[in-house]
Parts: sequence; structure tokens; C-alpha cells
Amino acid sequence: MTKPVPADVLSRLKSVLGEAGWSEDPDRLAPKLLEWRDRWRGTTPLLVLPKTTAEVAAVIGICAEAGVAITPQGGNTGLVGGQIPQGEVLLSTERMRAIRDIDVDDEVLVAEAGATLAAVHEAAAGVRRRFPVGLASEGTATVGGVISTNAGGTQVLRYGMVRNLVLGLEAVLPNGEVWNGLKRLRKDNTGYDLKQLLIGAEGTLGVVTAATLKLYPLLASRAVALVGVDAPATAIRLLARAKEETGGGVEAFELMCRLGIDFALKNIPGTRDPLAEAHPWYVLAEFGSGEPGAAEAAMERFLERGLEDGLIRDAVVAQTEAQAKAIWAIRENQSPAQKPEGATWKHDVAVPVSQVATFLEQADATVRQIVPDARITAFGHIGDGNIHYDVLRPDGGSDAEHSARREAGSRRVHDLVASLGGSISAEHGLGAMKTEEARRYKSPVEVAALEAIRAALDPKRIMNPRVLF
Amino acid sequence: MTKPVPADVLSRLKSVLGEAGWSEDPDRLAPKLLEWRDRWRGTTPLLVLPKTTAEVAAVIGICAEAGVAITPQGGNTGLVGGQIPQGEVLLSTERMRAIRDIDVDDEVLVAEAGATLAAVHEAAAGVRRRFPVGLASEGTATVGGVISTNAGGTQVLRYGMVRNLVLGLEAVLPNGEVWNGLKRLRKDNTGYDLKQLLIGAEGTLGVVTAATLKLYPLLASRAVALVGVDAPATAIRLLARAKEETGGGVEAFELMCRLGIDFALKNIPGTRDPLAEAHPWYVLAEFGSGEPGAAEAAMERFLERGLEDGLIRDAVVAQTEAQAKAIWAIRENQSPAQKPEGATWKHDVAVPVSQVATFLEQADATVRQIVPDARITAFGHIGDGNIHYDVLRPDGGSDAEHSARREAGSRRVHDLVASLGGSISAEHGLGAMKTEEARRYKSPVEVAALEAIRAALDPKRIMNPRVLF
Repeated sequence: MTKPVPADVLSRLKSVLGEAGWSEDPDRLAPKLLEWRDRWRGTTPLLVLPKTTAEVAAVIGICAEAGVAITPQGGNTGLVGGQIPQGEVLLSTERMRAIRDIDVDDEVLVAEAGATLAAVHEAAAGVRRRFPVGLASEGTATVGGVISTNAGGTQVLRYGMVRNLVLGLEAVLPNGEVWNGLKRLRKDNTGYDLKQLLIGAEGTLGVVTAATLKLYPLLASRAVALVGVDAPATAIRLLARAKEETGGGVEAFELMCRLGIDFALKNIPGTRDPLAEAHPWYVLAEFGSGEPGAAEAAMERFLERGLEDGLIRDAVVAQTEAQAKAIWAIRENQSPAQKPEGATWKHDVAVPVSQVATFLEQADATVRQIVPDARITAFGHIGDGNIHYDVLRPDGGSDAEHSARREAGSRRVHDLVASLGGSISAEHGLGAMKTEEARRYKSPVEVAALEAIRAALDPKRIMNPRVLF
Repeated sequence: MTKPVPADVLSRLKSVLGEAGWSEDPDRLAPKLLEWRDRWRGTTPLLVLPKTTAEVAAVIGICAEAGVAITPQGGNTGLVGGQIPQGEVLLSTERMRAIRDIDVDDEVLVAEAGATLAAVHEAAAGVRRRFPVGLASEGTATVGGVISTNAGGTQVLRYGMVRNLVLGLEAVLPNGEVWNGLKRLRKDNTGYDLKQLLIGAEGTLGVVTAATLKLYPLLASRAVALVGVDAPATAIRLLARAKEETGGGVEAFELMCRLGIDFALKNIPGTRDPLAEAHPWYVLAEFGSGEPGAAEAAMERFLERGLEDGLIRDAVVAQTEAQAKAIWAIRENQSPAQKPEGATWKHDVAVPVSQVATFLEQADATVRQIVPDARITAFGHIGDGNIHYDVLRPDGGSDAEHSARREAGSRRVHDLVASLGGSISAEHGLGAMKTEEARRYKSPVEVAALEAIRAALDPKRIMNPRVLF
């Protein structure tokens, strides 16, 4: 818990913000102090609600002078507790929601930190463009949040993480100064890229107040297929082919296992198996192209070749938007479909694409040494090497017993990930949850460098002090 | 000039490297002390030639302890003097040339810092892949150099700068410690991205010793056209259309003006004008696709539509590889074709794509206030907003007189660039040449942050001390 905030600091904060700019009302604060899955509950002496970048600067300036800590919060959709204060001043960007500009020639959109992803998508669609970051939480997740956590999603394979989709930033640094880096340049080679340092910094190097986001043209054709295969290694081979056939037009390439399909059929009403027979593993493939018909043609070539030489056991191509949605629903329900099945150890890991099959094999063996009858599902963005590896308790087993083994089990899964050159947090960040694990798996050389950078920019460690490392 | 290096440091360096690992031979040193256009000449007490990462670490460790400065050098193709020592120990990566690994499933190639771009291209082609960084200097430019300078080139529009093409780095930090960040992950969200800080740091935060590079599939179709247009604003409108027609498959979109074509016709033997009549401005457009025939089809649609509504005055599509090369040669000869025409003020600037036309118009007006009869050519990567804006002396005018006005004239061009939200160094970096200009055009807030980061990682300022800021 962070030390108490002096009363004079609180009154100075209130006076620079005016009445609409702060709150101590428990009802107003409650939803911002609770992580949405109820894993973290927080506390704060004051919620500040700046309306402008100048107000953010005033808040951070006062806190910097007094050495008072701040936790920034966007849409409160984070999964690792980074947005929940434990006694810090809570800075919400909810009143900074403007889309400041949108420019088709520059293919950019300038949004304030509190604008939701959905608002960005809507504004982009208005000029026949798109911002290729898709998250389940996009109605709530904010621009500032997805930038500060370098969010991922289902389109990373083609477009990269949020890190690759930001051309400029405006931010208030930990000393309270405003950095106006809201450029919209594709090329700017004039020293260290401060923007790249702030992206994914989880609020520890300042508060992002606005960003210039890259837009892309709408697609003219799109093809979605569900493909049955024998093993993850086959899926990897098919991915390389898919990239060749489309010349980089693979929009998504998602792996699922049979047990995950079974859970969806059993626990998600209305789910139907699109393929006639059961297969050990599945790939959801989506291709996209700017040329009408090109995605469908590439999909046809891809499937024909795979069926011919036996890499593909069976496949179905969505003929309508409704069929495409039904196939995607199976993928999106992989996590919800587990819930009725009891206690789970969840892992959000990445390994090199070439190591996905090895990881799955060795992880299963490792887990079964601890829980021989565990029900294991694996699904995720195989094109990025990002696997959601979930270990459910045995059928009819004890939830308590399974949960008690989680820490030791997850440690061994993460050790395996590290030994394969992987990451223990592929897309969710470290937050307050994985600070110790970050130290365990990063080299001391790297941790020392990152700590030196943090101390250089935030010598009093006031920005989200319990987060990262 | 950096202070003299103590004799005992030199002998310690020699002893850790062994006989093949260093040189004081003036003939051996000479080509490394001269910038290739003869703009910078340097001096060094010792050339060190480490063969391994451990040897690089030993060298930097000794220098760090003694506070002795180091200038790292790759292929010595830089344009801003960052690789030429002025009394520092000169560290060349020329003996670290291995391609350590190449993996088609991961779509990566791991190369040591001294490997040339050409060697990377050759290795990638061997597995039917490509690394989409094309530079005129690729036979000499090295992996360490293009990473440390965040190089650009003609393919930035589609693939981004080198910054976007690196998945992992191995580097020796300014304290002599080895950071092994040679991951090959597409997703890794575990704190600040140290790799992104080292890319483009021009050797000031350590020496890159190896890198994991992203590979891409070969293209199945490609279409190259030369298009005559009335004005840069039209070229920008066509670019937006080209992106739509190809769904992101624009490989290059290069602007040229008529005067540049005239210079090529006059001064480069064998050049022919591919179009029947003269036009005020030209676009070289290249489309690429993974689908056979798709690039050609998109080009046909793009040209037809532009000819129909008058945005395009005339166009020719290359029917053979030789014709494509001839069109590209006109673009690549824009700079060489100026040489016989006398003194020039050269600028490598970027502005937002939407501001390119405004920049060209206002820059011309500004320049003509100083030199009314100046011959102005502009060419470059219009898709990135990166314009090579060159001001030649009047026909028959005095070289000396024109050169004398360069500083004042370039200052006004750069002031204009800054006022349009642009960059004074789009792809070449700051080096030793633009350190003062960087301070002039960056905000004090940003400079202070960058200096704090540099001091945090290199407190004795031993790494390329005269470079950046």
C-alpha cells in the first residue's frame, strides 16, 4: 500500500480541477476500484478527472512536487491489475474522449486517451478506413489504455501489436511536463524514439493524453474457413503456405483443439460443429485482400492443395457472413465454454512459431506429472506463437485441490516457456500481477537497464509505482 | 576531438583481442577514417576488430572502466558522419559476419552485426523469402549499421523502417555487459522494449552484435508503371486510390518532377523518356501481391480509373523486367543526374503526406526569395512524405555564390518543414552533422528526456559521444 496522500495535496488537486474534475463519492469510485473479473480491489483518496492535457499536467506537476503516487486508468479492462490503485491518486481519462482529427491523405486519426476503441472504429469507418485492433472489450477499452499496455488482439499477425500502429503521442511525463510528440510522420530519424518507450510502459513513464493512430483501407474481399488437422505441427506448416498463397494477406490463423470444440458444443447454446467428423486439432483461417475475389481465390488454392496432399483432413469455407460469424463464435467462446467445467490454470504465453508444437507436447507431459487426468485445452493466435494454454481440473475432480496445485504447475509451464525462448506475458502485460515473474525470467542485465531508464524519467517513482518491476 | 586514450588502455585492448583483433596500420585504417563522399575525415588511436560478442564486451568493459570513448562502425555507408571517429577507439564489426540461423517456420533470420544486407538478401532468397530493406549501398551496409541508424529505403511504405523489421537484438551495453535479447517472438509484453530504444540510437546506447530479422514471402506478381500527373497534390490523391485498389499492396510510390527527368535524359547515358510527351510531375508506382496476376490486375484498374477521370495524364506499364529496371533507373538516377549541374543544397526531409504539396509550393517560394533562378528538383518516397528537396544553382551561375547561401537557405527550408510538423532527417539520422539542428527543432522537454535516458545507460558518455545530441 502506498503511503497516505497529504491533505494539502488533495486540496491543491481539487482546486486546479474544479468541481467536475474530481470525486470522492464512493458510488462514483466503486466501479473504478474493482477489476472487472473481481480479482483486484483497490482504494484511492481521490479520483481526478482531468478534461484537458493541461489539467493532466497540473495534476502530475502537483504530485511530482509532493512525491505523491498516481495510478492512471483508461477503460479498466486490463487483466493484470495495473489500473487498480492501492492508495494512489487515481487519474481517469474518461473526460478526454475527443477524436481530434481524421485525415484520409495521411491515413491517420488523432484521438484523446479516453476515446474508446469502438469510437475510433466508428470514426474510421466513416471515412472508409479501419484501425486494425480488435478486442472483445473494444466498447470500453480506451486509446490510452491500449497504447499503455501495447495491446494485441486477433489482427496482430498481419498488422502487429499496437506498438506498430501509433505514429505520434502526446503525453505528460512524470515531472509534469507535456511532451507534444503528436507527429503523423511515417519517417522521422532524429534520435531515440520516445514514443516507443511510452508504448507498453503501463503508465510508469507518464500519462498518454492523445495519439496519432495509423489507418488502413477497408478490405474488398475476405474468406473465413474452419480446417481440421491432425496436429499443431501441421497447422504451422499450413500457416507458412497460407502466407505464401496470400502474399501476407493472412488476417487471422487461430488454433483450437478438439476438447475446446467439445466444451463449446456442450456449454454454449446454439453451437454446431461445422465439420461432419471430429478432428484432433482445428485452424480458423481468415484471408483478406484489397482486390475483389482475391481472398476467396487464395483460400480455394490453399484448401485444395492441403486436401490433395493430406495436410488438411477436412475444411469448410463460410459462404455467408452469418456462417463466418458462427465459425468465429466457436473460437471466441473457447474461454467462456470452459467456465462450467470447474477450476482452471490459465496461461497467456508466446513461443517462437516453430516451437509451438514442442511447447504443447512438453507442457502436456509436464502437467500430467502433476495432474495425470487434467483436461488440457490450448487455443490462440498460432500465427504469433501466442497460445492460451489452460489446464482444467479432472472430470469430477475437486476444484480446491486443482487450485491448490496451480502455483507450482504454472511455474513449471512458465519455466518451459522460458526454456523455449518464449514470453510469460504475450499480450496482457505485467501489471501488478507479474512483477516477480518478470524478474525471474528477464536477465539481470535487462532489468538493470529498464530500472535505470525508469529512475531517470521518474526519479521519485510516482507513476504507477507498484507496476512492471 | 575526444581526449587521448591512455597507453595502458590500448595495450589492454590489444591483449584481449589477439593479433588479428586490432590494427594501427595506416593503410588498413584509411578507408575506415574517410566518409565515402569525402565529407568527414577522422582519426583513431586504435582499430579494434572483435570476432565475437564476448570480445566486444571485453573491449567495452575496458573502455567503460577507463572512461575511454568508442565509435562503432559497420559498412561506413552513413551519410551524417556518425561512424567516423575523432580520436575515439574505432570498433569495427567487420569480422562478425555470420548468418547464425534462418528459420522458415518462424520467418526469421539471425545475423551478426557485420553481415552485409546483400548477404542477408542472399540467405533469405535461398529459402524463398526476402528481407524487405533495399538500399543502394546494400553490398556494403551492415545489419548492425542499418539497425543502429533505423534505415529506410524504397520499401518503407509497405514494410516500415528497419525498426519494424527486428524481432530481437543482442547487444553490448555501455557498461560492457551483454544483453541477450535475441528473441524471435511476435508478441512479448513484459515491460519497456529495450530493443526499440537501441534501434536508431546510432551507437550511443551500446553496440548491436546480432539481430533476429523478420522475413517475408516472395511476391507472386509485381507491376511497375510510370505515370504523368499535373501536380504533387494529384499524386497524393492517386496514392490513396492505389492503397484502396491493392488493399495495402503498394510496394513503392515515388514522386519525380520534370526537371529531374530532364537531368537524367541529359546527363545519364542511355536514358529514354518512357512517355511520349513531357508532364510536370511523375509517379513511379510499384504494386506487389502474393497472388499471381493480382498486382497487374490492380495496376490496370488503378490506371484505367485515373485516365478516365483525368487524374492521370498518361502512363506506361513495364511489360518486361528490363522495362521495369529502366523505369526504376530513372528514379535511382535522380541524384547522380544532378552532379554535372553544379552546386546544390540538399535536404532529406519528411512531412505528413497531406502536407507534401503545401511544402513543395511554400519551399519553392521561400527559396526563390533567396535565389530567384534556382533550379529546384524534388523527388522521393511520397508515400512516406519523405522528399529529397534539392536546390541547384541557376543555369550558368556561380557554384561558390550558391554554396555560400546554403546555410541560410537550408535553415529556412528546415524551418518550413518544422512548421508543417515534419522531420529534418527522414531516414539518414542525426549523426555528428545534425546535433545542433536536433536541438533547434526538438522540444526542450523531449531533449531533456532523451538526455536523461542516455545518461542513465551511459553515465560516462563513452559510446559515440559526439553523436545525436
